[in-house]
Amino acid sequence: MHANNELGTVQPLEEVGRIAKEHKIYFHTDAVQSAGKIPIDVNALNVDLLSLSGHKLYAPKGVGALYVRSGTRLRQLLYGGHHQRGFRPGTENVSGIVGLGKACALAQEEMAKESCRMAGLRNRLRDRIMGKLDEVYINGSMEHRLPGSLNISFAYVEGESLLMGINDIAVSSGSACTSATLEPSYVLKALGTGDDLAHSSIRFGIGRFNTEAEVDYVADRVIETVERLRELSPLYEMAKEGINLKDVKWAGEAH
Amino acid sequence: MHANNELGTVQPLEEVGRIAKEHKIYFHTDAVQSAGKIPIDVNALNVDLLSLSGHKLYAPKGVGALYVRSGTRLRQLLYGGHHQRGFRPGTENVSGIVGLGKACALAQEEMAKESCRMAGLRNRLRDRIMGKLDEVYINGSMEHRLPGSLNISFAYVEGESLLMGINDIAVSSGSACTSATLEPSYVLKALGTGDDLAHSSIRFGIGRFNTEAEVDYVADRVIETVERLRELSPLYEMAKEGINLKDVKWAGEAH
Repeated sequence: MHANNELGTVQPLEEVGRIAKEHKIYFHTDAVQSAGKIPIDVNALNVDLLSLSGHKLYAPKGVGALYVRSGTRLRQLLYGGHHQRGFRPGTENVSGIVGLGKACALAQEEMAKESCRMAGLRNRLRDRIMGKLDEVYINGSMEHRLPGSLNISFAYVEGESLLMGINDIAVSSGSACTSATLEPSYVLKALGTGDDLAHSSIRFGIGRFNTEAEVDYVADRVIETVERLRELSPLYEMAKEGINLKDVKWAGEAH
Repeated sequence: MHANNELGTVQPLEEVGRIAKEHKIYFHTDAVQSAGKIPIDVNALNVDLLSLSGHKLYAPKGVGALYVRSGTRLRQLLYGGHHQRGFRPGTENVSGIVGLGKACALAQEEMAKESCRMAGLRNRLRDRIMGKLDEVYINGSMEHRLPGSLNISFAYVEGESLLMGINDIAVSSGSACTSATLEPSYVLKALGTGDDLAHSSIRFGIGRFNTEAEVDYVADRVIETVERLRELSPLYEMAKEGINLKDVKWAGEAH
């Protein structure tokens, strides 16, 4: 992945690609999150194949693109007509293709300005939340991250409960691909995050059409909801009073 | 295929499906040509699987549907997320899906009236052409045929030359899937059509937005172009004068 779909963190593809190249291994990257958000140079990234999806960069849904470096040998997965050199038989989605092309051109044009604006909004959201709430943890590197992405764990709060509390806001507790499961995110687990904090994480995504006022609204709604949920959490109350669960004597427990 | 893509002829799926069923064989049909044009009842047709494509029934391009009879076991071809029960991973093309649903509803609503109107236009085209031109052959059954479809061979005329002569009209000399090849249609060959007549065939398709005036324009343009091309054809001139090529004595040929 060029940028991780849950965190927005950007991977060092130049290095990965260089290693792959040295060993004459084809290198494919999923750039669905990053395309249109940060510059992509397939030569600098040393990738042979790169996929992107239209709806992530304001093109229509139902269309995507695969970059194939000249000389890369592929085997087709689908059979039928000879469209798209036999790799994807079927009548082409012309309006989708045109839409994707135009969306890419617009993204390219506005990238410098937009990424600055989105990072500003994203940092505003983070600072406002972290200025009011304690025990809030940013997941993944802030430095190597897409401008509009943020992933925060709110200790002592279930991510799903928080989502329910702010259900007028489109945020998510994990990736869309795993939205039907209740497992903690394998991405956060891989970062070394414990189950509790992994379960308390929320993904925020700032987009082209978001405003400062919206960001402030989201921050305030998150703050008030986290505070309310924590008030209901005996674990949070105990932690605040400096009580360690291990020291608690339970009724009936041997002394 | 429910209806053939080059001819528009409708296959006896009820029978084929019944035989498949008797032998406990899954039966899939490609209904891309027929969906929205003639009634489809998956139970009457005895099919377990049926595919259709949006753009053939005035839905957007880039969307289609697969009917799967309950209990039919499939293996996925594509891997990734768990969308669409794992059979087609990826973010769904929502606007395409809604468009396809609406297009199907409209097709259903207007089918009785529209199929009558289209068959009328199609027959008008056929009659006008055949009233003026000799040695014109209808390919495939007129009885078992989609209302808007027609496929005609014009003896002594190359299909491609005829297309060039009427290049202000969207007709085709074969299927879109084989448009890059110069081979004669394997569909016409399978009907027993000789190479010459197969090469001289044109596919006409009448659609929802075609008018009587357009049909008359097409007929007249075809007639005048075929007449012009035949005037240039020594074979046609000889045939008209009753000369059989086999009887011709060539210069230098032994008597």
